[in-house]
Amino acid sequence: MPEQRVRYAPLREKITTPAEAARHIAHGCNLFISGFTAGYPKLIPAELVKRAEAGEKFKINLFAGASTGDAVDGVLARAGLVNWRRPYMSDRSMREAINRGEILFKDDHLSGLSAAVRAGEWGPVHMAVVEAAAVTEEGHLIPTLSVGNTPSYLAKAEKMILEICDADPPELEGIHDIYMPEDPPFRMPIPIYRAGDRIGKPYIALDPDKVVAVVYSQQADTCAFFSEPEEVALLIAEQLLDFVRHEVRRGRLPKGLPWQSGVGDVANAVLAGFMDDGFFSELSIYSEVLQDTVLDLIDLGKVRAASGAALTLSERARDRFFRELNRYKEKIVLRPVEISNAPEVIARLGVLAVNTALEVDIYGQVNSTHVMGSQMMNGIGGSGDFERNGALSFMVTPSVAKGGAISSIVPMVSHVDHSEHSVDVIITEQGLVDTRPLTPRQVAEAMINNCAHPDYREMLLDYYQRARREAGGHEPHLLGEALSFHQRYLATGDMRPGRGRAQA
Amino acid sequence: MPEQRVRYAPLREKITTPAEAARHIAHGCNLFISGFTAGYPKLIPAELVKRAEAGEKFKINLFAGASTGDAVDGVLARAGLVNWRRPYMSDRSMREAINRGEILFKDDHLSGLSAAVRAGEWGPVHMAVVEAAAVTEEGHLIPTLSVGNTPSYLAKAEKMILEICDADPPELEGIHDIYMPEDPPFRMPIPIYRAGDRIGKPYIALDPDKVVAVVYSQQADTCAFFSEPEEVALLIAEQLLDFVRHEVRRGRLPKGLPWQSGVGDVANAVLAGFMDDGFFSELSIYSEVLQDTVLDLIDLGKVRAASGAALTLSERARDRFFRELNRYKEKIVLRPVEISNAPEVIARLGVLAVNTALEVDIYGQVNSTHVMGSQMMNGIGGSGDFERNGALSFMVTPSVAKGGAISSIVPMVSHVDHSEHSVDVIITEQGLVDTRPLTPRQVAEAMINNCAHPDYREMLLDYYQRARREAGGHEPHLLGEALSFHQRYLATGDMRPGRGRAQA
Repeated sequence: MPEQRVRYAPLREKITTPAEAARHIAHGCNLFISGFTAGYPKLIPAELVKRAEAGEKFKINLFAGASTGDAVDGVLARAGLVNWRRPYMSDRSMREAINRGEILFKDDHLSGLSAAVRAGEWGPVHMAVVEAAAVTEEGHLIPTLSVGNTPSYLAKAEKMILEICDADPPELEGIHDIYMPEDPPFRMPIPIYRAGDRIGKPYIALDPDKVVAVVYSQQADTCAFFSEPEEVALLIAEQLLDFVRHEVRRGRLPKGLPWQSGVGDVANAVLAGFMDDGFFSELSIYSEVLQDTVLDLIDLGKVRAASGAALTLSERARDRFFRELNRYKEKIVLRPVEISNAPEVIARLGVLAVNTALEVDIYGQVNSTHVMGSQMMNGIGGSGDFERNGALSFMVTPSVAKGGAISSIVPMVSHVDHSEHSVDVIITEQGLVDTRPLTPRQVAEAMINNCAHPDYREMLLDYYQRARREAGGHEPHLLGEALSFHQRYLATGDMRPGRGRAQA
Repeated sequence: MPEQRVRYAPLREKITTPAEAARHIAHGCNLFISGFTAGYPKLIPAELVKRAEAGEKFKINLFAGASTGDAVDGVLARAGLVNWRRPYMSDRSMREAINRGEILFKDDHLSGLSAAVRAGEWGPVHMAVVEAAAVTEEGHLIPTLSVGNTPSYLAKAEKMILEICDADPPELEGIHDIYMPEDPPFRMPIPIYRAGDRIGKPYIALDPDKVVAVVYSQQADTCAFFSEPEEVALLIAEQLLDFVRHEVRRGRLPKGLPWQSGVGDVANAVLAGFMDDGFFSELSIYSEVLQDTVLDLIDLGKVRAASGAALTLSERARDRFFRELNRYKEKIVLRPVEISNAPEVIARLGVLAVNTALEVDIYGQVNSTHVMGSQMMNGIGGSGDFERNGALSFMVTPSVAKGGAISSIVPMVSHVDHSEHSVDVIITEQGLVDTRPLTPRQVAEAMINNCAHPDYREMLLDYYQRARREAGGHEPHLLGEALSFHQRYLATGDMRPGRGRAQA
């Protein structure tokens, strides 16, 4: 019953239907929503689509925490309702519309985004639509499985709609830690000294007078699908853990640094690698998105604390999580993304950062976002926050994609998100390169020998050797050929000469 | 007299000749020196060169704070004595040897470097050679005009040589603020809340037993040469100050944020722009290298505090500075570079960062280091620390170089140091683009119209329009042409078709 979830009486009077609530959203609305892989509103987007299907012509500017599910990004993109979308997304329909230039999109480092919104850089927050597990007796909001940018969106919102979600138990109360840093010029340090430190309140304070509607939802997030890691991911994870063990044993890295790992197969395999490993026992996780494996590690008694901006679980893991919520709540903290990703805290704690690259070049420049230089994949998200500030930062990628037609190691990446200065160790299933003690030329030789797939080593070596001879310099490049692997792929469907379609 | 400068008696017994002192440095030595544009040792490098000229065959690995003068980088590079050099340098002989691949070089974000050395990532610190203005009664070291990485180099040094420099007055004591942060995993915030806060000691503590020699120097740093800013620099500075004024008036930027400005003509022009401007009155400077203009602004009563890792002055300014040292010391703080450039502090204070680009592409990716993709210029230095973490970050560059033969705005930069996500505003003498509210395609149109030189606008627009049509995507690129401006320059000496040498 919605009444039990909304413990602040004046807001119970605002309970209404999604259709009524959605009437507050008109053409040109800057719509800021909760949601950071999980915890996005579902009913209001569906209502907007119904209105579009009934013939109403309107567009909104959609600003979320990061990616959401098909119930937001998918349906709104397909209905043609989105003018602007920021930041990070991973929905196929949304991505396609962005790449066609039909939806305006800009990607931002997630750590700095809330402050930019508070400074007014994103324009007025006409409406915030946020999912909640409950409203407290004082009218404060208990989020569901993500915090993301919701505190700042609500702080700036002119109007708000709350979706009280019955699928998320009210016992989530207490898992969140809501702290909003002050803004320059007068502000203090973020007082986190250990990954699990709680520094804020368990709710998001809001002005109940700005709530124009409360709706009652039974719709759970579309669950993430987690498969068992494939062999390539396991090989990468194994090398990564070996490397860290080795650095700790050499005394160059203290034991017990907290881990961040991006979303995906390899990141999951790294965390899975901790399970039967005695070396990594009292784990701290200071990450952005927490996934299934974190629960497994907690069950094994291996986790000291796990901090993130969201908890994205498969259906099976979610059931388990909800059943034993009180036990998991002792270990898990969900924070605003400006805190989970704060450069200050990441550097202070000395986070070990693991993120996935689309491609890496022989000198260690990393492309995380643009396929073949032009097509946006998902966005940079928080990868820059962690890679740039971690005590040790890893970029991982399988050495080839599309059955070998694409090499992830190329002469020059077709887009750069992370420069050579900001990434320490590159790992593929073939091997790894610790770039820290190497010149760019040494990196190139190691990258070709250790990380590139054997199918591409000769081509890469030929490029590098000729670049050294003909162009010279600190990072020798032949500018006429630097992007030739990509050009060949675009022309023939394969980066390997003679393996793709005949060129026109 | 050296005795008066060395107030700790046991160290006076170690006073010797440079030739004697330099004998402690042998082939394969990891030599860590003071110096960050200023404050580098001069006598010991000269001795090493003498030994090489006398026929001794040896090489050292040379690690400084950042750039030094010809008395270090120039003479050692020309003598062929350098195996490795890290980080940032700006000496012509050193640069040429690096680009020929004869000297191994790796460039690092300056903020993270001291911690990497402390962690042992750079290998053992066999010898530290540091310039000092004095040694205190307790045996502590008073640096000269830079702090740089000296505290960490001395903390890790197996042996040390001190160059007591008579050209720097002992009254420098008190201008330095030496604070060494703890290392992960157990560390606390850096307790700086205002640009001028002093959080450390006025000296660098050292273990006097590790001092193997003290030498007495009368050799001042080679002075920087500062010319009056040219018209292009003034035009850029004027737009930048107008923009900040406008943002403050719109309420999107608080007044009084501290400034960082890189080394060079434009940065100097920005600071000079404050002189007769009533809007900018109580200035805070939280920068890396402080230059002449800072003294001028202090003289005008406009500076609340100026913080940096070094003070690099022209000869005239240095005389003035030394004459009125006590007055300037009230305003100026010299810190370790890991503090002057700390991402945590830069973000907390909300620094306005101004740095110079070599080239910028139509989507806002920035190249700070590699000329035509391959040839190292100086290095990234601290520009990434400030651009990535400042409240607002500017990249400035004249729209053309070499009399118009090179466009600083290109379809795709030939190297990326700062990604589009990390830089806010691009300014040339032609105009500016605030990239924050724009999609990459909107950035491209604005960059071509506002920032590019008229000679190149049509070429750039033609590229962009065809890329949009033929490649599409979020950042449309034609990979076969993306670097064609650079290729034309390399082939003909001019990026403009038909203007350079005939192509072979």
